Amino acid sequence: MTKPQIVIIGAGFGGLAAAIDLRGVDADVTVIDKRNHHLFQPLLYQVATAGLSPADIAVPVRSVLRGHPNARVLMDEVTAVDLTGRQVITATRRVPYDYLIVAPGAGASYFGHDTWAGHAPGLKSIDDATAIRSRILAAFEQAEMAASETDRARLMTFVLVGAGPTGVEMAGAIAELAKRALARDFRAIDPNATRVVLVEGGPAVLPGFPGGLAAYTKRSLERMGVEVRCDTSVTEVTADGVTVGETDIPAATVIWCAGVRAVDVGGWLGVETERQGRVAVGADLSLPSQPNVFVIGDAAHAEMPDGKPFPGLASVAKQQGQFVARLLRARLGGDTGSLSFRYRDLGTLATIGRSSAVAVFGRVMLRGWLAWVVWSLAHIYLLISFRNRLLVFVQWVWAYLTFGRGARLITGPTQKQRTG
Amino acid sequence: MTKPQIVIIGAGFGGLAAAIDLRGVDADVTVIDKRNHHLFQPLLYQVATAGLSPADIAVPVRSVLRGHPNARVLMDEVTAVDLTGRQVITATRRVPYDYLIVAPGAGASYFGHDTWAGHAPGLKSIDDATAIRSRILAAFEQAEMAASETDRARLMTFVLVGAGPTGVEMAGAIAELAKRALARDFRAIDPNATRVVLVEGGPAVLPGFPGGLAAYTKRSLERMGVEVRCDTSVTEVTADGVTVGETDIPAATVIWCAGVRAVDVGGWLGVETERQGRVAVGADLSLPSQPNVFVIGDAAHAEMPDGKPFPGLASVAKQQGQFVARLLRARLGGDTGSLSFRYRDLGTLATIGRSSAVAVFGRVMLRGWLAWVVWSLAHIYLLISFRNRLLVFVQWVWAYLTFGRGARLITGPTQKQRTG
Repeated sequence: MTKPQIVIIGAGFGGLAAAIDLRGVDADVTVIDKRNHHLFQPLLYQVATAGLSPADIAVPVRSVLRGHPNARVLMDEVTAVDLTGRQVITATRRVPYDYLIVAPGAGASYFGHDTWAGHAPGLKSIDDATAIRSRILAAFEQAEMAASETDRARLMTFVLVGAGPTGVEMAGAIAELAKRALARDFRAIDPNATRVVLVEGGPAVLPGFPGGLAAYTKRSLERMGVEVRCDTSVTEVTADGVTVGETDIPAATVIWCAGVRAVDVGGWLGVETERQGRVAVGADLSLPSQPNVFVIGDAAHAEMPDGKPFPGLASVAKQQGQFVARLLRARLGGDTGSLSFRYRDLGTLATIGRSSAVAVFGRVMLRGWLAWVVWSLAHIYLLISFRNRLLVFVQWVWAYLTFGRGARLITGPTQKQRTG
Repeated sequence: MTKPQIVIIGAGFGGLAAAIDLRGVDADVTVIDKRNHHLFQPLLYQVATAGLSPADIAVPVRSVLRGHPNARVLMDEVTAVDLTGRQVITATRRVPYDYLIVAPGAGASYFGHDTWAGHAPGLKSIDDATAIRSRILAAFEQAEMAASETDRARLMTFVLVGAGPTGVEMAGAIAELAKRALARDFRAIDPNATRVVLVEGGPAVLPGFPGGLAAYTKRSLERMGVEVRCDTSVTEVTADGVTVGETDIPAATVIWCAGVRAVDVGGWLGVETERQGRVAVGADLSLPSQPNVFVIGDAAHAEMPDGKPFPGLASVAKQQGQFVARLLRARLGGDTGSLSFRYRDLGTLATIGRSSAVAVFGRVMLRGWLAWVVWSLAHIYLLISFRNRLLVFVQWVWAYLTFGRGARLITGPTQKQRTG
């Protein structure tokens, strides 16, 4: 008799946690991801701002599952799921499953303005991060050679759309990059004159954080020279910059840190999704009427006890993956009882800049240097492989002492930005 | 009175050495490079084989020249030189010079078979290295999913064309990657079955090294499982592999480590070049009849006392840059005496694999572990910035202890390799 087949789509926080926790079960586990690496997304902004190298925050999925003889990894792109025939369909093969865990994550959402994508890239993959890094650094290079003050100002203006953790972190990191790492490297421009604008549609930065910490974050960013504009919606994005309300902000670099939208999981499964592309699942994270198919992470719309959906956090995805692994272990052991996913809030953190962060642990709120130390330690701890932890630590200590940025490389296809 | 203008084209070993040694002269120094970073090319093969990250072997040119107030850096692409008007011409500007140092380096040469370039990429830039890394790693991923044994064998065959230091280093590194770092990561394939073929047109590997060391290198590679084929010319390269003589070697990955050809410096200057695109220069490295224009490094054909051209080594380029800087210092000081470039041979090294290398220092020859230690220390020392040295050291120690490879990332546009 062949063993039960468990297929996991996606090796992000949710999918990988499930695969890890399925070690040793009496089933074959297949992980399918279009990339060969698991990405520690919370630190992606550091790659985009030249603080870390891609390999510092990514690890091959195969390496993680090396010691799991019942697990195999396929680098392939899912195109559909045949729920009736119980098969996952990719461009080149069909992979049969008895249990399916769908965890493909989310991409940037431009709220219907898909033409904005080319002018305002989002930050979801390593290629996104290195492309944004090249754009940011090339903007300074071109400003150094700019023919007019108007051009120079536009090239030295950076707009972040969306003031969630990524927008806040990017704004702080670009301000520090300009004012610290680049400060003495140019002759024709003064990187201190860099303009960083953080635009947020809602009334405050860091939606979801307590008001006091949001206000602290705004003040901290402003002290670093970042212009924070809340209650401000972007109405147009072009190669020349953004329009907010009636105001044009000329900017060579616009980075999209706003909406996310689940990867096309509704299309794969042939089910309805809500506005953000997420698929509704039950308390055990399974699809209605498909008790063997689970959707977790950013692709899932699971409801908290208060009726709101779980937030799109790495820790939610990870715990959901662990939950489904536990549930499948029980099922494989013959236990058909029902389980409900419960989220254990281990805290939420966001960093603002050097020595500055905010953190919420239940009723405990931290800010400033202490929060930053907690943030640093937590992120080093969370990075999966020891090698990454060690290297990231060395680089952080080095960057902290020197204000330097080690990965200031412009790579990839030369993108001539518009000059004049 | 405006200061004399010294323009340097290229921030490789030669150009950067000249710029560094022109610190403090009473002249304005402008360095023009199409990239923003100086690249430590001798370790590029380690990026291509997932041992190091790009940022470990590259440093922004601006950072290097930060403390040189008389130096500025332009990231721009040279299209021509107006020798009569004394201007360097780029796509967007004209840069006047009084003294010009041309040091643009070399690229891969396919000996007239330019269609081979797409199938057999060369290894000259960071983008080359990350693209080759993606190709190598993706070949194993596709082999894991291959439909037939024929496909699998083709995907697991790697051909290196040219057995100079780069070819030898790549062959050794791919063999070690497969047999060590990847050994336990796959389920359907055995990475130990990887076939690495090193093809060399000449009679021995490492042309230019003493025969004894070449023979030792060949034996070492063969012990590592590399097939070394000397006296063998490649007659065809396609998406399916290479043809050597009458034999087809089916291979999904072919890497070009053979000829180099100077960047189009003859075209810029409007002068004749020899077969490898190099421009003949006099004993003081200046162009005949252009005493203020110097060509150095891989773009220059300067003759050694025995009438042979200087080899295309980093140390030659670096010493030539230092020589021209010294000559210009003398000229700016009013000394019009003539100087002749002399090369001081500090030794030649090539690494074969873990704990194995060859080295020549004058009459002293080293091989094996001791040569490898010397090679490691020399390369760590030579890496320009301390941060790079420290990180590379940490990673090497780690890799040595664990056999692991830290940078196994497949990034960039997904290149679907031909499967069947």
